Amino acid sequence: MSAIQGYNPRTGEPFGEPIESTSDAELDAIVAKAVASGWSATTSEQRAEALERVADALDAESELLVSTADSETALGRPRLSGELKRTTNQLRLFASVLREGSYLEATIDTADATTVPPRPELRRILRSIGPVAVFAASNFPFAFSVAGGDTASALAAGSPVIVKAHPSHPRTSHETARIVAATLPEGVFGIVHGLAAGPRLVQHPAVKAVGFTGSTGGGRALFDLATSRPEPIPFYGELGSVNPTVILPGAATEETAAGFAGSLTLGVGQFCTNPGLLFAPASMVEALTAAVDASSGGPMLNERMQQGYRSGVDSLAGSDLVELAATGTDPAQGYSVAPKLFTTELKTFAANLGTLTEEHFGPAAVVVTYTDPEELLAVLPQLPGSLTATVHASAQEHELTGRVGAALQAVAGRLIFNAWPTGVAVAWGMQHGGPWPATTNSLFTSVGATAIRRWLVPVTYQSWPEELLPPELQAGNPLGIPRRFDGVLGTR
Amino acid sequence: MSAIQGYNPRTGEPFGEPIESTSDAELDAIVAKAVASGWSATTSEQRAEALERVADALDAESELLVSTADSETALGRPRLSGELKRTTNQLRLFASVLREGSYLEATIDTADATTVPPRPELRRILRSIGPVAVFAASNFPFAFSVAGGDTASALAAGSPVIVKAHPSHPRTSHETARIVAATLPEGVFGIVHGLAAGPRLVQHPAVKAVGFTGSTGGGRALFDLATSRPEPIPFYGELGSVNPTVILPGAATEETAAGFAGSLTLGVGQFCTNPGLLFAPASMVEALTAAVDASSGGPMLNERMQQGYRSGVDSLAGSDLVELAATGTDPAQGYSVAPKLFTTELKTFAANLGTLTEEHFGPAAVVVTYTDPEELLAVLPQLPGSLTATVHASAQEHELTGRVGAALQAVAGRLIFNAWPTGVAVAWGMQHGGPWPATTNSLFTSVGATAIRRWLVPVTYQSWPEELLPPELQAGNPLGIPRRFDGVLGTR
Repeated sequence: MSAIQGYNPRTGEPFGEPIESTSDAELDAIVAKAVASGWSATTSEQRAEALERVADALDAESELLVSTADSETALGRPRLSGELKRTTNQLRLFASVLREGSYLEATIDTADATTVPPRPELRRILRSIGPVAVFAASNFPFAFSVAGGDTASALAAGSPVIVKAHPSHPRTSHETARIVAATLPEGVFGIVHGLAAGPRLVQHPAVKAVGFTGSTGGGRALFDLATSRPEPIPFYGELGSVNPTVILPGAATEETAAGFAGSLTLGVGQFCTNPGLLFAPASMVEALTAAVDASSGGPMLNERMQQGYRSGVDSLAGSDLVELAATGTDPAQGYSVAPKLFTTELKTFAANLGTLTEEHFGPAAVVVTYTDPEELLAVLPQLPGSLTATVHASAQEHELTGRVGAALQAVAGRLIFNAWPTGVAVAWGMQHGGPWPATTNSLFTSVGATAIRRWLVPVTYQSWPEELLPPELQAGNPLGIPRRFDGVLGTR
Repeated sequence: MSAIQGYNPRTGEPFGEPIESTSDAELDAIVAKAVASGWSATTSEQRAEALERVADALDAESELLVSTADSETALGRPRLSGELKRTTNQLRLFASVLREGSYLEATIDTADATTVPPRPELRRILRSIGPVAVFAASNFPFAFSVAGGDTASALAAGSPVIVKAHPSHPRTSHETARIVAATLPEGVFGIVHGLAAGPRLVQHPAVKAVGFTGSTGGGRALFDLATSRPEPIPFYGELGSVNPTVILPGAATEETAAGFAGSLTLGVGQFCTNPGLLFAPASMVEALTAAVDASSGGPMLNERMQQGYRSGVDSLAGSDLVELAATGTDPAQGYSVAPKLFTTELKTFAANLGTLTEEHFGPAAVVVTYTDPEELLAVLPQLPGSLTATVHASAQEHELTGRVGAALQAVAGRLIFNAWPTGVAVAWGMQHGGPWPATTNSLFTSVGATAIRRWLVPVTYQSWPEELLPPELQAGNPLGIPRRFDGVLGTR
């Protein structure tokens, strides 16, 4: 059994004590404790209070967590402090979602003998799907890791959570898990480490759903395991995304170019929403090139990513299909890389869509220059699925913006106007999902209040004795939650 | 290319002209027309009116439809008239769902720079997932077939529908499809026939989701195709279900026995919600045996089902694990069969759960006798997933009913008290789904208003120009639909 060693990306040196890989027997014991935890039978209020306690406990140890994460990820203390705050706010958002109560979709139909077929009394509510496995991402050591959005939303739903830690930040994972596990009741939360633990978790009969954030290759392999089980289970994977951005002629300014370079190089380009594909008028290439030439790279999260980025951009640089237009500064320390900008023409792009829409995780983008917006409009619906699609336009280009939006609507989960896709607010209205390969299931989001729906299944009580119903479905609505009564939304 | 010949189950004779199998080229053309139909861009009101027109057109031809279906299914005119009415009411229910508007989950978050991370303006809505394939069932030639619940809910969602007709009622399918296609705009609805059309439809790149009602084997094979596509798509399969029923001692009456036999033999047992597994006190076996001995069978839907039922009950009858306790009358015409009741003890059942929970589609059930309710409570959570679970109890057994309900909650989508599972109301509160193998995805229902959610994906507009937003998301709520505004449900 090998141990998981963390590294400092700024130096390439080992950081901290390694973490032991979880054995099969240990994993099975963790899952058995999750099953026995009784978490699904707790009330919404009990879970809300527990999530707030976890948030408070994490905030109380922010100094340790941020400094550990900074050593393991090199993302910098300001970013990591903000990310931890975002993570604890996310836990608190789900506490508020639990108290608001509409997430249960409580529905009451009174009996009606006159319908065809006759309708008995029906009362419908959502319940936890059961224990959930969460695969932590590398690039957000807090917000998409041990106590991130998948964990928060699953715990809120009443699902015990077993996290598969990301090997890029083992100590951060370990410390976070220690705090979460100590705050929650026995068995509600568990963590596993090591390569073998992933497939075993996905195939464990007691695990009923999986959340995953990571690469398309890794995600697809685990998706295939989840769906080929004797009892298939839902697998919610957030995979690769090129996040197309369209600059219309009226927005082809130096300011837009600077904004783009900022979004492209933020966090060394290590965002799921990084703008890796830009459609712009040819007149803008000069400004874009200058902005990326003036930009700085930095250390990537681990050596494998650095190598993957370098081999990806090297292969693009050697291709006839694009030209290398700009290279930012490589600080040349640890796992650092340089930002890269490639250019090509719309015609070449359209003929090589498969090759040129591959994601290169890191601060690299392909600029596709166009002259006729009509030609661009014909290409946009053919793009692969993405988390986001962005349009920059002037106030005089609304008609064209509408048509670009309509063309992009089917390829992305979030459409952004005159802003940049990096930065994902945690809110009721957020959608962080999209068609394949952005995710394995475009019906759901992994960020925002509605992420909880992934872990909930409906159950209907027909003519069930009043006093045996959950209070959320009882007559008179004792908890005062939003309900649908005989088809009408309200609090009846 | 072979043609699909219908048969009269009462005689085994061919009925009507055969229907040609759909060629690959014809199928591709049908899908291309669906893609080009523009259905996803219609308004909710336009789709509501279209669904009502389809309902009216089907009602207007009820005489032809019912008589054709009766010849092909032998389900009888009263049942089929009721089923057609249920089917057209289902289309009208979805028209009302469209007008009510909450199905869109319209959500507006105003910008808030003070949150971590800062929140831009976000407006979220659901849109159609794209063209949908629907696999019709054999046992409901209207309600779960060409214009059934999957078709109605998908059309409502803005998804064009291509139905794979069930070979058991080709003329009924053909006539229904003729009426639906003539009523809807070009390409919105299509139908395909023949064995080869199924896999081709599921693997067609332009098909974005699948609805299926049928056998576990057939459903699993198509589920595997859907999930192993280069771009996996959601597959909503309703498969087999044994629908456990628990009779507590206080309800072990002759009336309960008669009710059970009625539910077991209704429609020759050809319901997804047929009660195939009964837990009852040993004292009740006599009454159950008498009721099933006095019952009548009838013709099953097709020869393959008759053979499958016979070989299933023969194999049970030859097993050491159960005893054949009762056999109803076989009218001995066409594809007819006799109801069968088997008995076993709880201990034997618990030791042979896999074998004894296999579904035998038709009017056969296994009665598991118990003496100690505590022993029963230990077995119930181990049952395979079902669409329904039912409890019969006296008013003095509420505490035990509650514990039985808690034990059954994780194995079924609908819990029924002192009634029978056959009969599925079409309503907001209905849940027709359940854990594997009842369905391939327990998060959804194939019956009731929320069935529409299967065909809808979210899209969020971030800082998008007001006048380019769909009216459902515009300021002032011009359509007056339910929305969530800054986290609060209402009509703001």
